[in-house]
Amino acid sequence: MNKNSSNTMALTPNTSNKRETVCIFGTGDFGRALGHKMLQSGYRVVFGSRSTQVSSLIPKDAEVLSHAEAAQKATIIIIAIQRQHYHFLAPLAEILLGKVLVDISNNLKINQYPESNAEYLAQLVPGAKVVKAFNTISAWALQSGTLDASRQVFVCGDDMEAKQMVMDIVRALGLTPLDQGSLLAAQEIENYPLQLFPMWKFPIFLSLGLTAFFFFYCLTLDVIYPYVYENKDFSFLIAISIPNKVCPILALILLALVYLPGVLAAIIQLYRGTKYRRFPDWLDKWMLCRKQLGLVALAFASVHVLYTLVIPIRSFVRWRISSYTVSQALNNKTEPLDTTNAWISDSYLALGILGFFLFVLLGITSLPSVSNNVNWREFRFVQSKLGYLTLILCTAHTLVYGGKWFLNPSSYKWYLPHAYMLSLIVPCTVLVVKFVLIFPCLDKPLTQIRQGWERNPKYSE
Amino acid sequence: MNKNSSNTMALTPNTSNKRETVCIFGTGDFGRALGHKMLQSGYRVVFGSRSTQVSSLIPKDAEVLSHAEAAQKATIIIIAIQRQHYHFLAPLAEILLGKVLVDISNNLKINQYPESNAEYLAQLVPGAKVVKAFNTISAWALQSGTLDASRQVFVCGDDMEAKQMVMDIVRALGLTPLDQGSLLAAQEIENYPLQLFPMWKFPIFLSLGLTAFFFFYCLTLDVIYPYVYENKDFSFLIAISIPNKVCPILALILLALVYLPGVLAAIIQLYRGTKYRRFPDWLDKWMLCRKQLGLVALAFASVHVLYTLVIPIRSFVRWRISSYTVSQALNNKTEPLDTTNAWISDSYLALGILGFFLFVLLGITSLPSVSNNVNWREFRFVQSKLGYLTLILCTAHTLVYGGKWFLNPSSYKWYLPHAYMLSLIVPCTVLVVKFVLIFPCLDKPLTQIRQGWERNPKYSE
Amino acid sequence: MNKNSSNTMALTPNTSNKRETVCIFGTGDFGRALGHKMLQSGYRVVFGSRSTQVSSLIPKDAEVLSHAEAAQKATIIIIAIQRQHYHFLAPLAEILLGKVLVDISNNLKINQYPESNAEYLAQLVPGAKVVKAFNTISAWALQSGTLDASRQVFVCGDDMEAKQMVMDIVRALGLTPLDQGSLLAAQEIENYPLQLFPMWKFPIFLSLGLTAFFFFYCLTLDVIYPYVYENKDFSFLIAISIPNKVCPILALILLALVYLPGVLAAIIQLYRGTKYRRFPDWLDKWMLCRKQLGLVALAFASVHVLYTLVIPIRSFVRWRISSYTVSQALNNKTEPLDTTNAWISDSYLALGILGFFLFVLLGITSLPSVSNNVNWREFRFVQSKLGYLTLILCTAHTLVYGGKWFLNPSSYKWYLPHAYMLSLIVPCTVLVVKFVLIFPCLDKPLTQIRQGWERNPKYSE
Repeated sequence: MNKNSSNTMALTPNTSNKRETVCIFGTGDFGRALGHKMLQSGYRVVFGSRSTQVSSLIPKDAEVLSHAEAAQKATIIIIAIQRQHYHFLAPLAEILLGKVLVDISNNLKINQYPESNAEYLAQLVPGAKVVKAFNTISAWALQSGTLDASRQVFVCGDDMEAKQMVMDIVRALGLTPLDQGSLLAAQEIENYPLQLFPMWKFPIFLSLGLTAFFFFYCLTLDVIYPYVYENKDFSFLIAISIPNKVCPILALILLALVYLPGVLAAIIQLYRGTKYRRFPDWLDKWMLCRKQLGLVALAFASVHVLYTLVIPIRSFVRWRISSYTVSQALNNKTEPLDTTNAWISDSYLALGILGFFLFVLLGITSLPSVSNNVNWREFRFVQSKLGYLTLILCTAHTLVYGGKWFLNPSSYKWYLPHAYMLSLIVPCTVLVVKFVLIFPCLDKPLTQIRQGWERNPKYSE
Repeated sequence: MNKNSSNTMALTPNTSNKRETVCIFGTGDFGRALGHKMLQSGYRVVFGSRSTQVSSLIPKDAEVLSHAEAAQKATIIIIAIQRQHYHFLAPLAEILLGKVLVDISNNLKINQYPESNAEYLAQLVPGAKVVKAFNTISAWALQSGTLDASRQVFVCGDDMEAKQMVMDIVRALGLTPLDQGSLLAAQEIENYPLQLFPMWKFPIFLSLGLTAFFFFYCLTLDVIYPYVYENKDFSFLIAISIPNKVCPILALILLALVYLPGVLAAIIQLYRGTKYRRFPDWLDKWMLCRKQLGLVALAFASVHVLYTLVIPIRSFVRWRISSYTVSQALNNKTEPLDTTNAWISDSYLALGILGFFLFVLLGITSLPSVSNNVNWREFRFVQSKLGYLTLILCTAHTLVYGGKWFLNPSSYKWYLPHAYMLSLIVPCTVLVVKFVLIFPCLDKPLTQIRQGWERNPKYSE
Repeated sequence: MNKNSSNTMALTPNTSNKRETVCIFGTGDFGRALGHKMLQSGYRVVFGSRSTQVSSLIPKDAEVLSHAEAAQKATIIIIAIQRQHYHFLAPLAEILLGKVLVDISNNLKINQYPESNAEYLAQLVPGAKVVKAFNTISAWALQSGTLDASRQVFVCGDDMEAKQMVMDIVRALGLTPLDQGSLLAAQEIENYPLQLFPMWKFPIFLSLGLTAFFFFYCLTLDVIYPYVYENKDFSFLIAISIPNKVCPILALILLALVYLPGVLAAIIQLYRGTKYRRFPDWLDKWMLCRKQLGLVALAFASVHVLYTLVIPIRSFVRWRISSYTVSQALNNKTEPLDTTNAWISDSYLALGILGFFLFVLLGITSLPSVSNNVNWREFRFVQSKLGYLTLILCTAHTLVYGGKWFLNPSSYKWYLPHAYMLSLIVPCTVLVVKFVLIFPCLDKPLTQIRQGWERNPKYSE
């Protein structure tokens, strides 16, 4: 490299140091974007195309040849064409013998074909080494360079060396390769970019259902009841008051549902006397989406906090307080401070604040970058010890909120209990059962079972 | 390794397993820190120095030799001297032939020299393989071991093997190497540690400008106007009331500015009938800093929330409410509940809360560790669908807040509209245009264009 | 691979592409979980066991042989047995010659044995290449596939090639290997999973101590004093009012303690005239836990914010305001607005809000994934410039809160100052000393010292 070369801001380094040549079959959107990015990273790129006319859209530094010619120039061939056109590769089988074919295709639906595109390609060109990669990256992200979304590229393939070569390219493009194993993983990799929060579906549908139920329950008691019996229009409660009853109820129930499967699993293990039998499927799935359940609960809790904090700004509340004060003044009486009431009001708020604070802490530790920096013992300490403390505080918050109303029959409209009472069922059950499980007579065998001990070793089939 | 060796807590493993020798030219601050860290990681370190007198500052286990002698002992030579002294390496060219020279230098200004230090080094010693690395790590961080800041080491170089060797050392020191391609990337790597939030500059200056404008606008209407016409001193509004008008205005405008470029890009693509022509430069830059714009908007929204929630604690507000209540009591009248008012007040607060909640959700998903764990489809769902929902909720929040004032001429002081009305211009425009773009007659061709279709293929130059 | 093979969803790819064979000594819980995971990733697995009877718990696709036979089938042998049984490996030394032994063991206590388990293994089987790995992963996490906790596997060993082989396996299992250097790092790696937030201990104990002190201090002044002198029961203040005094005090003190060591270090460096002498041990330790101190301070500040925002909802506060308004109405007087009071109240709240906002910003930038994406200059800008601004705002918030009470002797009960006055000592000291250090006559030599200059070079021993 002489003095001059540094002034001409070439896209690629001098020839002797240049990276290997990569061939790209297909000059579509993604093929071009990938070619452009590879040229920038110092690769030579040759496109294989039906028409070898140089289109203005193809990067200038790249060659365009027929498929057969292009394939001969490189060891690695990126197949940037759609699955339905793969069959044209069959006649090229001889030229592709021993080459590394990179399948980057995606489908339109999950499990669209019986076998993955990469496996189909491997069948069509049996002599080639097929590697699945790049399908999770969008052409737009490659072009614009704004990889705000994931930089992770899942790679799989049966040939170790071929996979390594592809992973080197991935790294050279500034992306992060993730080895996913053999080509059998291709199906999963092809489904991945089509997924839309699969782990969140159950928690979100569950909470939507519960929200609808509790919303109409509260609507009945707070809006319809006074309208029927007192002909009062409280419909404006729909905006804040009723959501502010539904949110804490859902937060509490969902938080309890995070800890319920753990308690159930303990009971099942104790009953079976072994940890080596699989849990029922529904319990397994439930346990896998506990994090998501907890985060949805946290979302409801956060909205509840905001709804609660705006209470004194609401015009209805201001009117109520003002009316009360005016009526007191007009009746010429000053009420003394009710210390019991002050105690209940303050401790209910304090419990809620502490519970919410711990809840947010749990949420922060579930951020991937934070949980990556704690060891297993610390993670369990936070998610189990602090988690139960949060549940206890939030349950106590709701219990104290209820305060004296529990035994007051006049507070039961239409013989229906208050909504918050319903919300206490699950968390109280979880806490009571967990408390029972802590007793040494149950905790000791459970610990032994979890360390691999079996009550009846022959039990295993 | 015999029994004794495990008791003597040596810094390095026994000789047969020791890593290779690394030479460091220069015994300055960073050279010593790097040498110390390498010794800890099991490398043999030999310093090349003008004076071979062993200074007390140099790690004990390291040898100090003349430059020529030191260079002969190792394949990898780290050049821990400043660029202005590089010329002394020219006479050593013969000894350095084929060696890996690691340039770790930084400059004081961005683009200080026409070529990067690493390229300059490559010109001075043409026979050596130059690799750029380590310049983003501070000596202090290496010494103290508290790498709270980035552990990422950008590596670039023209020789693959040399780069791999350097990346192995980086990994062995507990750092994360990032291959940035050929030596041409050195300029960018050398500029990187000199940058101070380059992507944030435009959003921050824009928001400072807008803040200043709206602050003085509100000051005029809320403090100067009543002072001139009613001779009242409302200067204390500067602390909370006026900031609490400016913050939501900026949050709303900046949030709308996040979605405006996307709308503009769609119009340009529709007009041109192709996606293959570059957008104007200003639009490209605007699109690249959308994330930062959105986060600045979120910051303003968060401060607005806090300012709003402290309203009932403010002594001015307490005085106003108390005065109002007292005057009501003295006039012996109780006002009935105004349900319309209650509806407006509650729904305006509810819209704001939901909008802010979604806004925070958007902010959380833009955390690098979270966005790394979602696929492209999920990322687009959150940033586009949820983003527009946030914009709609926040715009509705502002519209309902305005409520009945819009058509009230007495509320226009000095014929100037309220500040919040100005804030509605951009978001309403974005929402209307976006709504129009959703119509099938526009959405269909746009989708085709984005999939690569061109209205007039010959258009491309 | 023919058409049929893609339909039979085999766990592993066809034979020719299969990965190498790995041997696992020990059929315990972790050994089986690891074996299962390896089979899934395409490895052949052979278990070495005392009893070669095939247990139902061992994965079906794995072979079970005697230790000697199993060892001969593989290059890599994973020792999934406890340290106290390692001695049985000594007789196998001949077969294990040249093999890679992977020590995955953990201890029950930190530094339980004089040497690490891996070093002990290396002594027992001198001819083998010992690599430490996998000890940070739990069997449960491997089995369930829910690696919510860390995916990081620390690897160390004296033989480069052996280590590389183990790191390849780690990657193939979907985990992230982290090279920790030579086998001497094994002790630390073995201690790692036994740690429970070691860096957090000092900040948490310190804050617990300070909390206890300030809680009883406030209890004395706010509950015991009025009870003794006025016989009033204010015990309900324990729930919110007193915590809401303690939290901001601790937040401010801890925040100041984050910046105090930096100021002390500057004074020490100025006094010594060199940066090359180690700081006293306590200062070093203090500096290393600054991030944790700051985050604990942020936690206290957040709780303070929540406690403050619920003030208007508290039944005690509502009663007080209502009583005051009623008494005003009964006395038939309306108080005019006190503008000074409005100024003080508003600016104290505004300072607090801005201080808290910056504090949260500091907290967000200390998230690992965020701090990984900023360069050193940006990190220092945020943590130092923004950090001091936060400290200034929070101190000003407290000073303005105090307002006119400072010089009011009647506010000193039992001659004790208000608690918030005590909280101002540390932050004010830090700010004053920092202000002095900014003067050029001190800043210039300090900058020189930090760049490596020494006042008295012979000083160094």
